[in-house]
Amino acid sequence: MAQVYERVALIGLGLIAGSMAHAMKRRGLAGHIAGFARTDETRKAAAEIGFVDSVHESAAEAVKGADLVVLAVPVGAMGKVAEEIAPHLAPGATVTDVGSVKQAVIDAVGPHIPEGVHFIPSHPLAGTEHSGPYSGFATLFENRWWLLTPPEGADPDAVARLRALYEGVGANVDTMEPGHHDLVLAVVSHTPHLIAYTMVGVADHLRRVSQSEVIKYSASGFRDFTRIAASDPTMWRDVFLTNKDATLDILGRFTEELFVLQRAIRMGDGDHLFDYFTRTRAIRRGIIEAGQDTDAPDFGRVRKG
Amino acid sequence: MAQVYERVALIGLGLIAGSMAHAMKRRGLAGHIAGFARTDETRKAAAEIGFVDSVHESAAEAVKGADLVVLAVPVGAMGKVAEEIAPHLAPGATVTDVGSVKQAVIDAVGPHIPEGVHFIPSHPLAGTEHSGPYSGFATLFENRWWLLTPPEGADPDAVARLRALYEGVGANVDTMEPGHHDLVLAVVSHTPHLIAYTMVGVADHLRRVSQSEVIKYSASGFRDFTRIAASDPTMWRDVFLTNKDATLDILGRFTEELFVLQRAIRMGDGDHLFDYFTRTRAIRRGIIEAGQDTDAPDFGRVRKG
Repeated sequence: MAQVYERVALIGLGLIAGSMAHAMKRRGLAGHIAGFARTDETRKAAAEIGFVDSVHESAAEAVKGADLVVLAVPVGAMGKVAEEIAPHLAPGATVTDVGSVKQAVIDAVGPHIPEGVHFIPSHPLAGTEHSGPYSGFATLFENRWWLLTPPEGADPDAVARLRALYEGVGANVDTMEPGHHDLVLAVVSHTPHLIAYTMVGVADHLRRVSQSEVIKYSASGFRDFTRIAASDPTMWRDVFLTNKDATLDILGRFTEELFVLQRAIRMGDGDHLFDYFTRTRAIRRGIIEAGQDTDAPDFGRVRKG
Repeated sequence: MAQVYERVALIGLGLIAGSMAHAMKRRGLAGHIAGFARTDETRKAAAEIGFVDSVHESAAEAVKGADLVVLAVPVGAMGKVAEEIAPHLAPGATVTDVGSVKQAVIDAVGPHIPEGVHFIPSHPLAGTEHSGPYSGFATLFENRWWLLTPPEGADPDAVARLRALYEGVGANVDTMEPGHHDLVLAVVSHTPHLIAYTMVGVADHLRRVSQSEVIKYSASGFRDFTRIAASDPTMWRDVFLTNKDATLDILGRFTEELFVLQRAIRMGDGDHLFDYFTRTRAIRRGIIEAGQDTDAPDFGRVRKG
């Protein structure tokens, strides 16, 4: 594949940045990959694994001469990093980010971006419950969505070039208005994560059911919740703090619905439960057909033993 | 492997019974497998697939001469089936069931079991979101738990023989008191299922986020919920109606916890969120170590495209 950027600077070297670097190297999409991470430990790990060509002591150093700068830090840290790098950005460079919330990032980062630099926020809908420099892998973005939320009047060439990079690492690219992005994500990601965290927390508190029982018998539904609830705490704290309104809106609807089902259980209203459970089946079919999950009878999971 | 039962009668021919039949045949654990299902369609499908050696027009017919009878119908249908087969059970036979709730099955089935027949309730913690005669497969129970809740004074030889069958199909077998079983399952399975059904229902109702958006972008958390929420509606209706007390207990705790997290989001209490999310990570580690899920970075799923 042809090179898309000459010099890419990754600010933050966790799961997403690491996976981007692995994928860009494998496909020859970047001439040079410069990296910066806040801790010594992560910088050393990235250098050792070798997914960056140069590791820098500051974000300002890392972005020098880069034609693409990727902010891959928790949403709550984006503003400070943007302020730090702003004076060092090359004219004509593109700055993007990979945060899970878009309006808050635009509000925090936007004001720091100098004239002549393109700011095109983005969000890859890909990840695992792992984090840190050792968690990345080249195929993370394959057949996953990568959403762009370019501001009105964004340079079409800059947008097309960023899209080419993301398609180059295997993603399907779509554009969206930032507020709508935040609402959609509140539904398909943020609220489900909060619910999973909550359910795992409930299991953790119970005295009559032991921890070891919860762990042993987790295969029957709870297991998927624990995987979701093992995601990076810093990242998710920032998501909920910065996508507060949409998350609280969807949470309110969720609690209402839950109370209606809870009442049906209490009153023994089997018809209500049956009808509800029948409707939810249809959505699943849509997802299978859209190719976003496997239909394998064991969920495609590796079996042990 | 050695034959464990001479003649096994499967009452109900869905995912669990079908998987048992496939597994018993593959491992030579049963001499003859007789089957009965309520609908013509399912009986024909089972005969066509060939996982049973004989298909019968009534449950009473199917159990004749069987030394093991497996009730594999929804929990709410167990009592009626037990009443029907009771006069036709062979002396010394074992009757078991595979229901997800145990006390309600014991209350419904127990009174019908004649003197000289062993009733040993059981529950395999295995399944997929699929149902019906075509959904079974021989490896469903491998390295999954199969819980027995034998009544006090149960015949040790009959229990050991049933255990041998379940171990023969690849399961890990444990015994448990029925009430405790129902509480544990309310935590690891029943409440998570209700929550997943609810969240998928919320997504289904929203007008500002389209169905196609929900489906397209489901990969980021919601996907696991939809899989859970695609499970058999009849089975799950019966689970909630018959494990009402434990489910309502756990649901109450869940809502309390959720409100505390919701308040933390509203108040911007990042420390509370961070601490909560850090604690839930530990449970996940335990499950990986217990071998009940894979740690593969892509969750072991098959990739398309």
